[in-house]
Amino acid sequence: MDLKAYLKEQCARVDEALDGFLPKETELPYSLHKAMRYSVFAGGKRVRPILLLASCQTVGGNTKLAIPAACAMEMIHTYSLIHDDLPAMDDDDFRRGNPTNHKVFGEAVAILAGDALLTEAFKLVSDPRYAAECSPPGLLAIIHEIATCAGSYGMVGGQVVDMESEGCNDIDLATVQYIHTHKTGALIKASVVAGALIGGASGQLLAAITRYGEAVGLAFQIADDILDIEGTTDEIGKDAGSDVARGKATYPAVMGLAAAREEAQAMLDEAIRALELLGPEADSLREIARYVVQRHN
Amino acid sequence: MDLKAYLKEQCARVDEALDGFLPKETELPYSLHKAMRYSVFAGGKRVRPILLLASCQTVGGNTKLAIPAACAMEMIHTYSLIHDDLPAMDDDDFRRGNPTNHKVFGEAVAILAGDALLTEAFKLVSDPRYAAECSPPGLLAIIHEIATCAGSYGMVGGQVVDMESEGCNDIDLATVQYIHTHKTGALIKASVVAGALIGGASGQLLAAITRYGEAVGLAFQIADDILDIEGTTDEIGKDAGSDVARGKATYPAVMGLAAAREEAQAMLDEAIRALELLGPEADSLREIARYVVQRHN
Repeated sequence: MDLKAYLKEQCARVDEALDGFLPKETELPYSLHKAMRYSVFAGGKRVRPILLLASCQTVGGNTKLAIPAACAMEMIHTYSLIHDDLPAMDDDDFRRGNPTNHKVFGEAVAILAGDALLTEAFKLVSDPRYAAECSPPGLLAIIHEIATCAGSYGMVGGQVVDMESEGCNDIDLATVQYIHTHKTGALIKASVVAGALIGGASGQLLAAITRYGEAVGLAFQIADDILDIEGTTDEIGKDAGSDVARGKATYPAVMGLAAAREEAQAMLDEAIRALELLGPEADSLREIARYVVQRHN
Repeated sequence: MDLKAYLKEQCARVDEALDGFLPKETELPYSLHKAMRYSVFAGGKRVRPILLLASCQTVGGNTKLAIPAACAMEMIHTYSLIHDDLPAMDDDDFRRGNPTNHKVFGEAVAILAGDALLTEAFKLVSDPRYAAECSPPGLLAIIHEIATCAGSYGMVGGQVVDMESEGCNDIDLATVQYIHTHKTGALIKASVVAGALIGGASGQLLAAITRYGEAVGLAFQIADDILDIEGTTDEIGKDAGSDVARGKATYPAVMGLAAAREEAQAMLDEAIRALELLGPEADSLREIARYVVQRHN
């Protein structure tokens, strides 16, 4: 498959849907809706929604029904970036080469834009206009999975431990693993699982997809850690080496760059292995996993 | 009915359930879970959950099934207070006489505790352990109603306009109405509607309960505005007169204290009138409406 063309096509599909789902800038309160759209359309690669759609397709589902959940995952991801960038958190002025939300709209609106995006995600997945063709118990299971992975036992929990570990000299591998599987891994796993659930997967198939999601989620974050060291500022969209400068808990910091590279490859192998029982219908998931680990921007 | 005893009993019921639903302080990340619990158990009167339970009971529903949604509303309310108090927003050091969340746990953890409480609310309402006895399409409708009222067209939208109106000299009644019906009213309405939906209400009954919820929500906030002027610091739990000092958009500021008092009474009358078709089974809703407008703390 032509991965580049596939990603471009799926990205455009997600962008168009997001544009339709998000509140308009011409609706009150203008500043809030402008701020929400600013960060959602700030050049994200749509990794989570694309994984969700690919997962749904892999298990034989109708990806049209998965579009709202895919967009919901991107809204949750975007809210987490807006809040992470705040002065009280990572205090970042730039993201993907653009000024961060609070630099443009001020801290208060940035906090509220994040809050509204998180809320909007749950509104979207439960919207009767889009939910009608899905099974209600299935949708409830998806909402519960997303909320579990995004909350205090998932993404938010990972962010807290990440922050509290910053600058500590004695971080061990277990802590870095906790941070990565929670802060980044949980939402990626949730995307893959939600896609499979919408596609009607259960039993062995759902278990395989879940294992794939966990491995890809961890591989993604280790690759990100490595990119922070090896990438150029232009490639990363913010200052290269900023993790090191901040004393962030990362794989390279704990085990060295070479071992971190091996670990990312091991996770990629595990993700591919998890899909063993599947044929060519899982090729998109396999290709996305490779792309996630080997990407340079 | 003995309203004081009723409120005390319902409050205890909600508190006990919240304690069971919220993540434990002994679970990772400790600081996050501590911060979440700190604000949830900081002396709230549980107006929203009690309204939800009363509404469910009024339409003949089983209030046991409404407990998770009732607690979810309190989590959303608490998250909104934590974020409102942040230095970038209202910058309040005290709430209900206690130091605000960010004064105790720092800004970063306070932001994340709010995020986690909002997420936890949706996790709770979709939890298969509690959702099993409810109708899945009904639960989806409730999730959608809650998310709509809490998001950019509801509570968060109201907070943005409230903030942006602060200190402006030419605020008109329409703006104050927008702020109040969105910032406070929406979540109160959602509580009442969710309770009625869980209780199986539809048609004329649901419409009546909805009208009641809208009127009580607005009455509640006008009463709050008046209390800020007339109450003592001890009664309010924070500095009396702080709305005036900040140039907040309030009913008394726009129409004067006497007219604001009349408006609160008019809203109370409207709430009571909305329940005309109901008998004594709606007495708890009627009493709560009176309490909400006439309370002094």
